[in-house]
Amino acid sequence: MITERHLFGPGPSNPYPEATDALARPLLGHLDPAFLAIMDEACEMLRTVWGTTNARTLPISATGSAGMEAAFVNTVHDGDVVVVAVNGLFGQRMCDVAARCGAEVVAVEHGWGQPVDVDRVLSAHPSPAIIAAVHAETSTGVRSDIAALGAGKGDALLVTDAVTSIAGIELAADDWGIDVGYAGTQKCLGVAPGLAPFTIGDRAFERRVEKPRSWYLDLNLLGGYVGEAGVKGGGRTYHHTAPVAMVVSLHAALARILDESLPAVWARHEDAGRRLQDGLEAMGLELFAAEGWRLPELTTVKVPDSVDSAAVRRHLLEVHGLEIGAGAGAYASTVWRIGLMGHNARPDAALLVLAALEDALAQAG
Amino acid sequence: MITERHLFGPGPSNPYPEATDALARPLLGHLDPAFLAIMDEACEMLRTVWGTTNARTLPISATGSAGMEAAFVNTVHDGDVVVVAVNGLFGQRMCDVAARCGAEVVAVEHGWGQPVDVDRVLSAHPSPAIIAAVHAETSTGVRSDIAALGAGKGDALLVTDAVTSIAGIELAADDWGIDVGYAGTQKCLGVAPGLAPFTIGDRAFERRVEKPRSWYLDLNLLGGYVGEAGVKGGGRTYHHTAPVAMVVSLHAALARILDESLPAVWARHEDAGRRLQDGLEAMGLELFAAEGWRLPELTTVKVPDSVDSAAVRRHLLEVHGLEIGAGAGAYASTVWRIGLMGHNARPDAALLVLAALEDALAQAG
Repeated sequence: MITERHLFGPGPSNPYPEATDALARPLLGHLDPAFLAIMDEACEMLRTVWGTTNARTLPISATGSAGMEAAFVNTVHDGDVVVVAVNGLFGQRMCDVAARCGAEVVAVEHGWGQPVDVDRVLSAHPSPAIIAAVHAETSTGVRSDIAALGAGKGDALLVTDAVTSIAGIELAADDWGIDVGYAGTQKCLGVAPGLAPFTIGDRAFERRVEKPRSWYLDLNLLGGYVGEAGVKGGGRTYHHTAPVAMVVSLHAALARILDESLPAVWARHEDAGRRLQDGLEAMGLELFAAEGWRLPELTTVKVPDSVDSAAVRRHLLEVHGLEIGAGAGAYASTVWRIGLMGHNARPDAALLVLAALEDALAQAG
Repeated sequence: MITERHLFGPGPSNPYPEATDALARPLLGHLDPAFLAIMDEACEMLRTVWGTTNARTLPISATGSAGMEAAFVNTVHDGDVVVVAVNGLFGQRMCDVAARCGAEVVAVEHGWGQPVDVDRVLSAHPSPAIIAAVHAETSTGVRSDIAALGAGKGDALLVTDAVTSIAGIELAADDWGIDVGYAGTQKCLGVAPGLAPFTIGDRAFERRVEKPRSWYLDLNLLGGYVGEAGVKGGGRTYHHTAPVAMVVSLHAALARILDESLPAVWARHEDAGRRLQDGLEAMGLELFAAEGWRLPELTTVKVPDSVDSAAVRRHLLEVHGLEIGAGAGAYASTVWRIGLMGHNARPDAALLVLAALEDALAQAG
């Protein structure tokens, strides 16, 4: 039996149909000229969604969290000071990952649901090697001002987590001063999970670790096969076997997104998120993320006091085949996370989740 | 336009049709009970193909090379002596990866095309922490005797690369004394590349690194979500977003393989490989791998002196849509690698590649 779901949680989202179709196309070899052409086009389209001209822009062959690890393992030298803006789970994770890479981590803690306080982060240390922040916190539904961090970063490198922002809201890596960025495919890019779109600028690459502790994520080795190789037209060096089907699927989704145009895609996310958030407030529910910093693609809402969070989610899943997410960390049972990302960023999806939640709350009441 | 290929190189191979169909099924959330049941079943079927009862048997969320990294990053403590049997590219890679994890590597070099010399490896160091070897060297088409290494390993842990052997030839992790094993999906398992089936026994897990340098591959964290969690029926802890579509595809391929039965699958590989190798010799070509140690699923053959290796491969690809592999390392232009793996381990595939090669050689001659 095939189980079908409306994936309205914090990710994965339902992929764009083009991405699903592409997964089932006849497989190509990872060194086949036909595949290398697809890889090069995918890297070029990734540059567009990142807002960068970085030659080293590529899909890393693992999920978004491996992108985070690639960012730090290639840039953190032993003892480097890394200032991390922590306003949710993924900021916390950055601290753990950077510390394992040898960093002296300076964590700048924020209340969950709040955006990054740019002044506090920039003044946390006089001369950090790296400043790191999450653009769109998947755990809280909050956007932060990466451009302001970039403007004030000084000599530090700026590492940015764009897992939940890429292809959902405005992202301008070069204009904002992002030196290293990583993302995931399973949110607004509308592809199944499995790849980490990644970009690194020349300034960061020049300061890279010559022989990182990770062989799999070593950008010196990866660059010979994807990203810069495509730009420079040089020969391909075998490193590992690329996840061919996933890359072909990413290519199809990117083509779909750019065909619609990035501004139109952002506007579609904005519209769907506004409908959802307005509807939730009209139902008397309280939003969790700070006003003015709410992500349209991922909405956090407080569970009403007398309501069993898990029972509502189970009702949605079992009766309506509709998944929303529990809260993260300490908010597991007091917050819901509702994503309208990628193919799901549509008015009908917003209506459906509102109606289904109303039904579930009526059952729970 | 859809490009179709006969993938008769060293991998990826053409997936089992069931695996391709599964890729395009409606996506499930990574914490959906329906997906967790599929993940648990996949882990259980992986135990069968590994020949193990290890609770910690799981598909790591990246390609086979990340499985190699997971093996060493979780078991190598700084300064540990790791004896590596090097009889091809993937043995070399083990040395690099283990060294980055802090190992003092003792490489036992062999001629390419030769199997591992068990006595030399076992006597290379009086008390290694780890002995590591490749079961089926993808670079040379050679099988080695892992059971003999396991019988003589003493107190050392035995790490085994089964990327090209799993579900193609006999593999018996527990009987052979394999403590840590990793594989890939894109060879005899008949799935697209993207996952690293992995297994680790209690003895190795007890000696593990408490906080490995890699967060993404940290088995302490992974175990809460897959593998042991499925066995112990405990709660699931979110670590990273599993590559859902790939896991569902792996599940479908494993079900297909076990439905046919492992001995029947091994016999099918054996038969296809024999037909191919007999046919190549009948054409007057010389096999590269040492006699008695040739893999049925991956055949290496010497390029005749006057023949342009690349031109033949191009002819096969362009005229017949058929991919075979170049040699690895120093043998790039003097050896071909022909894989009949997974769904391609069939008599008709053996006939086709022989006929196509005959045609290409006639063009070249």
